[in-house]
Amino acid sequence: MNEYYMNIALKEAKKALKHNEVPIGAVIVKDNKIISKAFNKRETKKNIINHAEILAISKACKKIKNWRLNDCTIYITMEPCMMCSGAIEQSRINKIVYGTKNEKFGYTKSLKNIEIIPNICEKECKDLVQKFFKKMR
Amino acid sequence: MNEYYMNIALKEAKKALKHNEVPIGAVIVKDNKIISKAFNKRETKKNIINHAEILAISKACKKIKNWRLNDCTIYITMEPCMMCSGAIEQSRINKIVYGTKNEKFGYTKSLKNIEIIPNICEKECKDLVQKFFKKMR
Repeated sequence: MNEYYMNIALKEAKKALKHNEVPIGAVIVKDNKIISKAFNKRETKKNIINHAEILAISKACKKIKNWRLNDCTIYITMEPCMMCSGAIEQSRINKIVYGTKNEKFGYTKSLKNIEIIPNICEKECKDLVQKFFKKMR
Repeated sequence: MNEYYMNIALKEAKKALKHNEVPIGAVIVKDNKIISKAFNKRETKKNIINHAEILAISKACKKIKNWRLNDCTIYITMEPCMMCSGAIEQSRINKIVYGTKNEKFGYTKSLKNIEIIPNICEKECKDLVQKFFKKMR
């Protein structure tokens, strides 16, 4: 199932790529149902807050009308940064499944009480980001 | 000037209190002009993302049509959490001025390259939060 949901996160990431955004996608799942998905819109919206994870959390809160996302898993194509790791922790999401490590800004090692599953569809997630940075150069 | 802007952040925090929210307010200043102000709306909007700092950063990005908030200072009545500290760092805000320490969730010590000025109007900021928690009990 991890690969299944990560592939949906990857589809989101590819939408970001089309908008010339760093291709990162996120999907939030509760009871085997997708409750939100989103892709990075930092440049499009000119807003630093609009990382895929933050948008997915925000949509999920709206969907279930609660800021507590207990028993949810977030699938992200890349390891979350400090802002997003903090948002995930505060939202009480139980599990993070991510695609590729973020060597520079990844922040999951500071998270306690959250199960973390790294390296799901790693190559595809990593290739997508590298493709973006090659295109930007 | 720190006290002047902190008093405006305190006015925002008092608005949060009226809405039964944890009373935290934030103000972002650039070139001695206020570009955004906000208060915590987590409960009202049922959205974990809606901390005062995130709302203020988001408004500031909209105002200046850029996700980069270089040369800005954020005044916050309480020390920011991991999510908000990460958001401040990514937005390239240069300086954080805060009112009262957040013993449990404060995260400023992990921030490098950002000037941090603590304890401005400390008593008033702290009293406001304590008043809220007394009311809630």
